[in-house]
Amino acid sequence: MTENTAAAIEFARSHRDRFVDELKALLRIPSISTLPEHAGDVRHAAESVVAELRRIGMENVRLIETTTAEHPNGHPLVYADWLHADSAPTVLCYGHYDVQPAEPLDEWTTPPFEPTERNGNLYARGAVDDKGQMWMHVKALESLFAANGGKLPVNVRVLIEGEEEVGGEGIAWFVRAHGDQLRADVALVSDTEMFAPDLPTLCVGLRGMIYTEVEVRGARTDLHSGMYGGAAPNPFVALAQIITKLKDENGRILIPGFYDKISPPTQDELKAWKALPFDEEHYRQTEVGSPELTGEPGYSVLERTWARPTLDVHGMPGGFIGAGAKTVIPAKAIAKISMRLVPNQTPAEAFAQYKASVESIAPRGVEVVVRLIHSGDPIVVSTDNPYVKSATTAMHEVFGTETVFVRGGGSIPIVGDFVRELKIPTLMMGFGLPDDNLHAPNEKFHLANFHRGIESIIRFFCLVQA
Amino acid sequence: MTENTAAAIEFARSHRDRFVDELKALLRIPSISTLPEHAGDVRHAAESVVAELRRIGMENVRLIETTTAEHPNGHPLVYADWLHADSAPTVLCYGHYDVQPAEPLDEWTTPPFEPTERNGNLYARGAVDDKGQMWMHVKALESLFAANGGKLPVNVRVLIEGEEEVGGEGIAWFVRAHGDQLRADVALVSDTEMFAPDLPTLCVGLRGMIYTEVEVRGARTDLHSGMYGGAAPNPFVALAQIITKLKDENGRILIPGFYDKISPPTQDELKAWKALPFDEEHYRQTEVGSPELTGEPGYSVLERTWARPTLDVHGMPGGFIGAGAKTVIPAKAIAKISMRLVPNQTPAEAFAQYKASVESIAPRGVEVVVRLIHSGDPIVVSTDNPYVKSATTAMHEVFGTETVFVRGGGSIPIVGDFVRELKIPTLMMGFGLPDDNLHAPNEKFHLANFHRGIESIIRFFCLVQA
Repeated sequence: MTENTAAAIEFARSHRDRFVDELKALLRIPSISTLPEHAGDVRHAAESVVAELRRIGMENVRLIETTTAEHPNGHPLVYADWLHADSAPTVLCYGHYDVQPAEPLDEWTTPPFEPTERNGNLYARGAVDDKGQMWMHVKALESLFAANGGKLPVNVRVLIEGEEEVGGEGIAWFVRAHGDQLRADVALVSDTEMFAPDLPTLCVGLRGMIYTEVEVRGARTDLHSGMYGGAAPNPFVALAQIITKLKDENGRILIPGFYDKISPPTQDELKAWKALPFDEEHYRQTEVGSPELTGEPGYSVLERTWARPTLDVHGMPGGFIGAGAKTVIPAKAIAKISMRLVPNQTPAEAFAQYKASVESIAPRGVEVVVRLIHSGDPIVVSTDNPYVKSATTAMHEVFGTETVFVRGGGSIPIVGDFVRELKIPTLMMGFGLPDDNLHAPNEKFHLANFHRGIESIIRFFCLVQA
Repeated sequence: MTENTAAAIEFARSHRDRFVDELKALLRIPSISTLPEHAGDVRHAAESVVAELRRIGMENVRLIETTTAEHPNGHPLVYADWLHADSAPTVLCYGHYDVQPAEPLDEWTTPPFEPTERNGNLYARGAVDDKGQMWMHVKALESLFAANGGKLPVNVRVLIEGEEEVGGEGIAWFVRAHGDQLRADVALVSDTEMFAPDLPTLCVGLRGMIYTEVEVRGARTDLHSGMYGGAAPNPFVALAQIITKLKDENGRILIPGFYDKISPPTQDELKAWKALPFDEEHYRQTEVGSPELTGEPGYSVLERTWARPTLDVHGMPGGFIGAGAKTVIPAKAIAKISMRLVPNQTPAEAFAQYKASVESIAPRGVEVVVRLIHSGDPIVVSTDNPYVKSATTAMHEVFGTETVFVRGGGSIPIVGDFVRELKIPTLMMGFGLPDDNLHAPNEKFHLANFHRGIESIIRFFCLVQA
């Protein structure tokens, strides 16, 4: 460890409380990107990040607007750079400042936007996904500036988006249109989790996704089920029929052609996954909590969640959802349906297959409209580059154990764009834990991992420099 | 027509505008019985009716509270009587002052609780179901009092409930426990519709119903569909599987034993139904508006909606129903499912069959809870009594055409209680129209029918007296 590295780590350790307090302030902003009524909060969060990047010494700090005719009401990107480490490589740091909706609110122990510490964890919507992890980058940079007389050991660009939870159209557009402004040697993304506590983890593959809505329209207007039951089509029943024809009871997707181009994991990968400390029954009890796990027979849980496509229903708006009874046959109902995709599926082809399938199985008496809400490519990143070595060494120094290579079941659409458009390796070095309740009530970030993440990133920057 | 009848009709005709204005005032009260936040409005509506019954000359006017330990937050009954027509029979007039929820609000042309006249119709939630029809009774009584020097030609009891739209537990309890206070010779219910415009109609049968909720629980908490998709059970998918196993694509209910005890309509009834002015294609276009009608093959629309049981889904609360995308696998989801029952099914047996069926078909990985929200018996009323003759004569005098006998697809639970507990014939003499949008946006009452209803009831009271 160089003297500068040690000084940066010392700085980070001596400012832990402040770092957490700052993160809490950011978590208090309900920057829910999918809800139009929170657009002001999303911008407020962006401006807070801009202010902090300026304060710590980053340059060219600015908001980049993403609203276009095709993409109305876009949330801004935050950009910053520091490019004075002449002979050193350039790291592109990515994160997002937007968060998921917090519903159902009554299942939170403490309110989602009042960050609360309990048992070494910080509870809040966005604590780990991704404000807390994004803040690790900012605080690692601050520590390095402070310990190095206002300089960084490497060149750094920071690009932080506000639309990750709604598909990331704005950043995708920017990367495609202005990739030249993002020239870098490696991208660092902290938006994933460790496989287990104390087990440093690099994520080397992600599922893609298509998020859709199927709207089913039956009668012209809502009808009384007493008077019209037996003659009027019921959109919810039609949706139930469609859903059961899209996925069978074993979890196998029935869309024609859907599995045709899938590239399975390598034998080496499957062998390494088998060696991971994973107990299916423990996972069922502690993480899922359902009476049984579901999914395709013949595949392990890790294969099913990392390397197999899936289809889920997220909500079915329409009709009467209040307490009590309303005997309505609704004129329309919607199913919010998403599919996770794996290499080498493409969102465009998967959506075309899905749309054709839904249209072909729609029952008589109703009309269906299939909408694509957003999508992301599945990706696998390469591990044969020196930055992977720097990352694993950095984490080994902090955690004392070897890094494991895993995949993630979720989507980080921008990683595909980095790989495809910028043609640079991407390190998904995340510090969440499997029980951090992403996208769910009581989201948390284990504060020890917040601090270990900052130290790992400091060490990574110092090692990349060499 | 006697002099008194003519005078009462003259009174009603000369006060038409006031009668409509009074009805509008009642319609402005959002007495939605299923929504706890409207409990005060429900009571306000009840008190308005009490005040009016007192004003016109009814006696013993009072609210009867229905709240008990088993039935918390009950809405009050309105009771009144006038029992001084010594040798004449006693008519029990029934109506309800509660209404359905008004959602979806954005499909109303004018707001549901701002009654508005357009093209001879009065638009408002509750206009025809049932405030407007209940008001016909009150206004007929007022006209008779006014024309007869403060007397009625018959004895009258009035019983008006505030829980018809939520199953009518309160009135059922009162009829069972205090039937002696309701001694009458015939019940008059105006809560049904005419088969076609200008076609006076008596409804002689009603489907029963059970309204249920199926709650499906999978994971302990909401989960991220990227991380857990492929392992965690999806409650909406489970509900879709359950729904498709309850009813097949032809509309046939698959619950074992469900059809076993059904008593079909008589050959005479089926023949009379075939003679009714009913055009299936016209009905599809003007009333339903869907690309096709659905339901069991081999049965006419009238049979399917009057004399066959059905199963409908009214709403599926749970998960994410906002705009945009949330990639959640919800911990639980609910389906609001009701079944219409026909003679001789019973709600108790049908619910037991249904519950056992749902529990037996619940897919692996989830737990199901089946709840009965409310229920009502199917009924067929007798037509071989003098009151039917008085009613058909009264309507013939007003409309100039013969009365048709139909059934209704909906439920009026109290009719079963009148038949069973009070052992009196019940006349369902309603003046709604098929396109009145009951339980739907833009509910209306054709004002000509409001006035013809008042005159028919005046004449009916005078004929019964004889």
